[in-house]
Amino acid sequence: MGDINGIGPEILVKALARPEAHALADLVVVGAKPVYEAVMPIAPGAPSPLLLSTLAEFPKTPGVIGICDFGHAAPAHRPGVLDPAAGASAIEWVKETVARCIDGTLDGIVTGPISKTAVYQAGYHYIGHTELVAELTHTAEFRMCLFAGGMRVVHITGHLSLRDALDAVTEDRIAASVRIANDALCRMGIARPRIAVMGLNPHAGEDGAFGTEDRDIIAPAVRRCVTEGYACDGPHPPDTLLGKMRDGLYDVVIAMYHDQGHIPMKLIAMDEGVNVTLGIPMVRTSVDHGTAFDIAGKGIAREDSLIAAITLAAQLARPAQTLSEGVSS
Amino acid sequence: MGDINGIGPEILVKALARPEAHALADLVVVGAKPVYEAVMPIAPGAPSPLLLSTLAEFPKTPGVIGICDFGHAAPAHRPGVLDPAAGASAIEWVKETVARCIDGTLDGIVTGPISKTAVYQAGYHYIGHTELVAELTHTAEFRMCLFAGGMRVVHITGHLSLRDALDAVTEDRIAASVRIANDALCRMGIARPRIAVMGLNPHAGEDGAFGTEDRDIIAPAVRRCVTEGYACDGPHPPDTLLGKMRDGLYDVVIAMYHDQGHIPMKLIAMDEGVNVTLGIPMVRTSVDHGTAFDIAGKGIAREDSLIAAITLAAQLARPAQTLSEGVSS
Repeated sequence: MGDINGIGPEILVKALARPEAHALADLVVVGAKPVYEAVMPIAPGAPSPLLLSTLAEFPKTPGVIGICDFGHAAPAHRPGVLDPAAGASAIEWVKETVARCIDGTLDGIVTGPISKTAVYQAGYHYIGHTELVAELTHTAEFRMCLFAGGMRVVHITGHLSLRDALDAVTEDRIAASVRIANDALCRMGIARPRIAVMGLNPHAGEDGAFGTEDRDIIAPAVRRCVTEGYACDGPHPPDTLLGKMRDGLYDVVIAMYHDQGHIPMKLIAMDEGVNVTLGIPMVRTSVDHGTAFDIAGKGIAREDSLIAAITLAAQLARPAQTLSEGVSS
Repeated sequence: MGDINGIGPEILVKALARPEAHALADLVVVGAKPVYEAVMPIAPGAPSPLLLSTLAEFPKTPGVIGICDFGHAAPAHRPGVLDPAAGASAIEWVKETVARCIDGTLDGIVTGPISKTAVYQAGYHYIGHTELVAELTHTAEFRMCLFAGGMRVVHITGHLSLRDALDAVTEDRIAASVRIANDALCRMGIARPRIAVMGLNPHAGEDGAFGTEDRDIIAPAVRRCVTEGYACDGPHPPDTLLGKMRDGLYDVVIAMYHDQGHIPMKLIAMDEGVNVTLGIPMVRTSVDHGTAFDIAGKGIAREDSLIAAITLAAQLARPAQTLSEGVSS
């Protein structure tokens, strides 16, 4: 549900009212039943909530969906209001849900938007869901990714200063990103993902004319991945590569820093963008937008990103192919 | 005309066949008359070329356009073939044309695509037109810009490695970019341009949490520009700012490095993108695409970017407002 005072509850009931949300997965809501009920009127056809104290069973009654708060009650519902208590309950719900993903009760989590400010004011110090889930799963090598239709970008680093991100451009990190991307796309049913690696410098450095990383770090990493059997090439000039993916030449692009992928993907993703964390030992997707406090409670927020996030989570939760199956198919 | 073996000649005759190319400016072609005549059949309505030995007079006859090679004859026309001699004539045409812009014979230049490889093989060492024009005009503080409809980005640096670009993020360079952008947009008829400055780090650094440049360099530069009277704000999180410009909230964005603007703008510009050099003492625009040797000679290249480049050059060639007029209007 995310922050109860953002648009999370609204897009949740709107998404659950659409049949495609239920096509690939059995869903359960983690959040506040009173809030769900308060926003239900904006989404005709949304299933009625049935309070669950545990996730031992999902209700199978048509038109009914289970909802659970794991004992962490939300504060009063005040759409558009920044409330540290709402930030706290959102974080506690994620922690409980991640624990059920790790123990196998759930196959994955789709997170709604939270307010970083509310979370900070509640005394937590997470930059976002991504870092929270990585910490809960003790994962150092997680990857922030943005998917939108046939456009997919895996970033080799996340929330680092650009200077620190430059220092983190290593062969090992690039090669690990290629493997992680390949595994995820195989789970999504792409037999042999076509993977393009972005350069770091303008024009991928023009063979060392401006910057040597493309020639001396990225190119060797790509050669290593090709040797390992991946359908991988690069480094490509950063400012023309995404157009090639849009034209269907690639299934995924490996970006060398956060904004190299975030700036273009957020510009073109419109309503179908999904934020994905790969490299962690569970499935986690998210809407790619924020709490939008300014329109919370108005019933006008669009649920498309959440639908896309649910669909992608269900695809990623399929049994993983082994690496050798992935690269030889 | 650019490289005669690329798509330059084709988009030239196709653009000149359209009335809007002539709406704001008197045009003259700098290039090879035999090549122009060779591609004319693909563009019904294109004006007939009249060879000029100097630019002392432009022909005023309807359906006729002047063409001049300044004594630098092109080699044989071989569409799609990389020919150093074609690279050399393209460069010499630009040099002659820039000289006529500086001496006042011409009000500006619109450049067609050249092949950097052909230029290099001919013995020249320019990364592109931008650097060539900057050198010819003895300009150190030029700015590479991409304009596409209402989307406009001015980059504070050009072809530098990303590491060097980080070191070039200074208050003076940002403030100069704001002034240059403001002046250009005033010439285009925007009375008080709304200027947004991008941050450098992810999320503009989150107040120093990842990277201090946004807080310690960019924010003070913006404050200085506001004090000087510009309608300027920032630093903004880089991955949401361009969407705000697309929504009409800003007229131009100042980007902190080459790919921060080039990656998104080249992805969304489609056929209307224009490459602009600002900060030089003349008007220079260009198509934002390359020679496209793979489709040269087929008559299928689109002329829209060239039309947009001609229109923008004519707008920029209007008398400049003074700075005080620009910021007080």
